[in-house]
Amino acid sequence: MGSQCRMEAEVRHIKSATTLSHLTAEQALADFAVLITELKRNLSAEACPVVLFGGSYGGMLAAWMRLKYPHIAIGALAASAPVLQFEDLVPTETFYDIVSNDFKRESMSCFNTIKDSWDAITYEGQKNDGLQRLSKIFHFCRKLEIAEDLSDWLDSAYSYLAMTDYPYPTDFVMPLPGNPIKEVCRKIDSCPDGTSVLERIFEGISVFYNYTGAVDCFELDDDPHGMDGWNWQACTEMIMPLSSSKDTSMFSPYDYNYTSNQEWCWKNFHVKPRPSWITTEFGGHDFKSALKMFGSNIIFSNGLLDPWSGGSVLEDVSETIVALLTENGNSIITYHFSFLALKS
Amino acid sequence: MGSQCRMEAEVRHIKSATTLSHLTAEQALADFAVLITELKRNLSAEACPVVLFGGSYGGMLAAWMRLKYPHIAIGALAASAPVLQFEDLVPTETFYDIVSNDFKRESMSCFNTIKDSWDAITYEGQKNDGLQRLSKIFHFCRKLEIAEDLSDWLDSAYSYLAMTDYPYPTDFVMPLPGNPIKEVCRKIDSCPDGTSVLERIFEGISVFYNYTGAVDCFELDDDPHGMDGWNWQACTEMIMPLSSSKDTSMFSPYDYNYTSNQEWCWKNFHVKPRPSWITTEFGGHDFKSALKMFGSNIIFSNGLLDPWSGGSVLEDVSETIVALLTENGNSIITYHFSFLALKS
Repeated sequence: MGSQCRMEAEVRHIKSATTLSHLTAEQALADFAVLITELKRNLSAEACPVVLFGGSYGGMLAAWMRLKYPHIAIGALAASAPVLQFEDLVPTETFYDIVSNDFKRESMSCFNTIKDSWDAITYEGQKNDGLQRLSKIFHFCRKLEIAEDLSDWLDSAYSYLAMTDYPYPTDFVMPLPGNPIKEVCRKIDSCPDGTSVLERIFEGISVFYNYTGAVDCFELDDDPHGMDGWNWQACTEMIMPLSSSKDTSMFSPYDYNYTSNQEWCWKNFHVKPRPSWITTEFGGHDFKSALKMFGSNIIFSNGLLDPWSGGSVLEDVSETIVALLTENGNSIITYHFSFLALKS
Repeated sequence: MGSQCRMEAEVRHIKSATTLSHLTAEQALADFAVLITELKRNLSAEACPVVLFGGSYGGMLAAWMRLKYPHIAIGALAASAPVLQFEDLVPTETFYDIVSNDFKRESMSCFNTIKDSWDAITYEGQKNDGLQRLSKIFHFCRKLEIAEDLSDWLDSAYSYLAMTDYPYPTDFVMPLPGNPIKEVCRKIDSCPDGTSVLERIFEGISVFYNYTGAVDCFELDDDPHGMDGWNWQACTEMIMPLSSSKDTSMFSPYDYNYTSNQEWCWKNFHVKPRPSWITTEFGGHDFKSALKMFGSNIIFSNGLLDPWSGGSVLEDVSETIVALLTENGNSIITYHFSFLALKS
């Protein structure tokens, strides 16, 4: 999951709604139910208990599967699982506030440079040859068509950086160093005096988009993380309202706009989102009490730097729900599981 | 639900699989989830707890909904709910054995007359003018095309009689007296000496098909109870294996034949049944332990005369699962709820 709710990415390969209609959380759970049952039968392992592991969207699936298929799984580790990131269950600005705080805690000047950059991009983009100049500063292979494409490209990178801010090098979203946000901020802050905001931003963002140094120029790939499928889900059942606060976020301020999301979904998929469906199907305000009642055997874990932690279930739920945190507030175990889930 | 597993009824109005594909237990539960949630919202009754009531198929839905939507319903009364009537969870002959015992306990001669009647029908049907004679004995408006249609017509009636053997008059499957099986057997047994088996059967079955006396001749309506929809379900997910035992059943003996069911389903709906799906989705061998673990708040109730009781969950499950029985082993409360569920 990324900043898909801003829906910056055009969907390139629009499949038919007939095919895509199978792409739902419920279908995924049912598929897992059949797979696990058949697998146990084939392996003559019917008596073996099953524990579910998943991170991010996979973490939600793990928690929901334990809820819906208690006869198939005895428990779940739901890592970075924003099961409460729906309707009005958590404040809409939570996600981008946490991303922003992850940068602020590294350096206030880094935070401010990023916060200032959005206006600088808009300003530059409106000038004669401004798009040409922006394309050159950011080493794009082709000339930008609109300045907003650049903003979306940056927004997406910061969000993924916050989701993958591990204390060790990783290679599953992009090849990244350990503590990549610290590295981005170091680059932004360490430019010589007189370096422009936009040039600083380019130095920083290269840590995400070009850590190996292998890229000569950047393609504005509008779907670098294969989010087509997620965009469909975000247009049908996974309606996660996000906004960016004027005061606390380093992103351009914006309110959550359901109507424009709806229009985007109709334009791209010819579907109408169902914003109340997930809480109807899996529980919402009463999610915690449902878990309590059931002695759920679900571990919700996430680091507090994790932008999805705001939509997860951590405190005061039951003795079976605990957080596994390392010293700096991140959970190594959690993120390992996230990784496995993303790959599966 | 009736003796649909013998699939005697031709489906007259075959709708397209595209439309019928929504006719599933899962869709029904999801519809109820949306309905209840919206209803509570509209009535400003979000804080009101919800308890589910259902009988027969509706009883299964009530139990399954409590299992799948614990955040929506705090408990369920699942009456005559054969949640274990799938795969090999209960012996296939249980249903028809209980129906047969319901007749045997009224009168051994009644049981034997019915048991003898099937061969008598086959024998008569093979004679010259035999179908004509059978049609006359049973007051059919049109001549029978095959003797098996008569057998199916009787089989269906006995099964429904066992399902509706209330100690008081009812009017929701057919207009019936209280204790209708006792009445059927009284008619069968009280014919003068020398009355043929088939004439006795006709007298008995008239209690079911013509209690009011308003019918001059019978139409062999192939879907008197509107089972089209159920036949679709029985061909997709509700695969309930039933057989008739040579020794203990009063019906013609037959083994459960999955292959011929499958062929019937393909011929009529162009679908292939998924016999393991229900136990995968809702639990099977482990259903009781799943309920136990959850402190399910589900009451499974049925009378022991109820042919579906063999596939229900009664004994040794947990303190929250109890039977509500009247003196004669039937449950008045249960059947009231069954009635409501069938109508809903």
